[in-house]
Amino acid sequence: MTSTTAFSPAELAYLLDQRLGRLATVAPDGTLQNNPVGYTVDNVRGTIEIRGYTMGASRKFRNVAENPEIAFVVDDIASLDPWTVRGIEIRGTAEAVRGEKPAGEGLSPDIIRIHPRRVVAWGIDPESPGMAGRAFRRPA
Amino acid sequence: MTSTTAFSPAELAYLLDQRLGRLATVAPDGTLQNNPVGYTVDNVRGTIEIRGYTMGASRKFRNVAENPEIAFVVDDIASLDPWTVRGIEIRGTAEAVRGEKPAGEGLSPDIIRIHPRRVVAWGIDPESPGMAGRAFRRPA
Repeated sequence: MTSTTAFSPAELAYLLDQRLGRLATVAPDGTLQNNPVGYTVDNVRGTIEIRGYTMGASRKFRNVAENPEIAFVVDDIASLDPWTVRGIEIRGTAEAVRGEKPAGEGLSPDIIRIHPRRVVAWGIDPESPGMAGRAFRRPA
Repeated sequence: MTSTTAFSPAELAYLLDQRLGRLATVAPDGTLQNNPVGYTVDNVRGTIEIRGYTMGASRKFRNVAENPEIAFVVDDIASLDPWTVRGIEIRGTAEAVRGEKPAGEGLSPDIIRIHPRRVVAWGIDPESPGMAGRAFRRPA
């Protein structure tokens, strides 16, 4: 299924409700890194933005500048009994952007902006309780 | 700092207390994947093992079989106010192992076994409250 919006209403609500995601990046030597990060959603652009106090000096920022491939996952345990997990995985590319207007005091003007290519969600949308994968094509 | 045990006592206690980690792998085409997974710790081997009902057929298993580089992160929010996060990131390699004795009914005999190369922890060890990185060298 190909969609022209990055996130369904249920996925967007879930992303806004959660606080941390985990961002996988590749270092120039081919090793991987996987970091918990806060994030915001830009639902107009269909992007996810990651900020930080020293973002521009971080290794994940440098990794993305060298190799834009990323995978970002937000998930949680909805219920321990019955065991119910839910989440959303976003595969795509990211930009290492310098000189954005800082969103808060002390925040770095450097951000990582994620452009989804494929979104896989599970347990989030009551209309599709299983796993739902979707390729995302940006509108022309 | 180089250590001969993969996990400190505080890190091991934290890993045993948490339920999900996120495993980043690389697909043969160079794209990334980031999956929430349950895990167990083998503190004698100094490895982390990931099982599943259909593990051997999963894309993460195939990714690891082709490219052993992984990053695995376990983290949570210890307190919302004051905002306190903690976690442990394990970078290293993983084996896609077929034919292990299944640990439970219905579990696949195929597992992913993680060999840490570098462990970074934050907020876990009361003796080192900041971020502590450590290279792990397996005993000869």
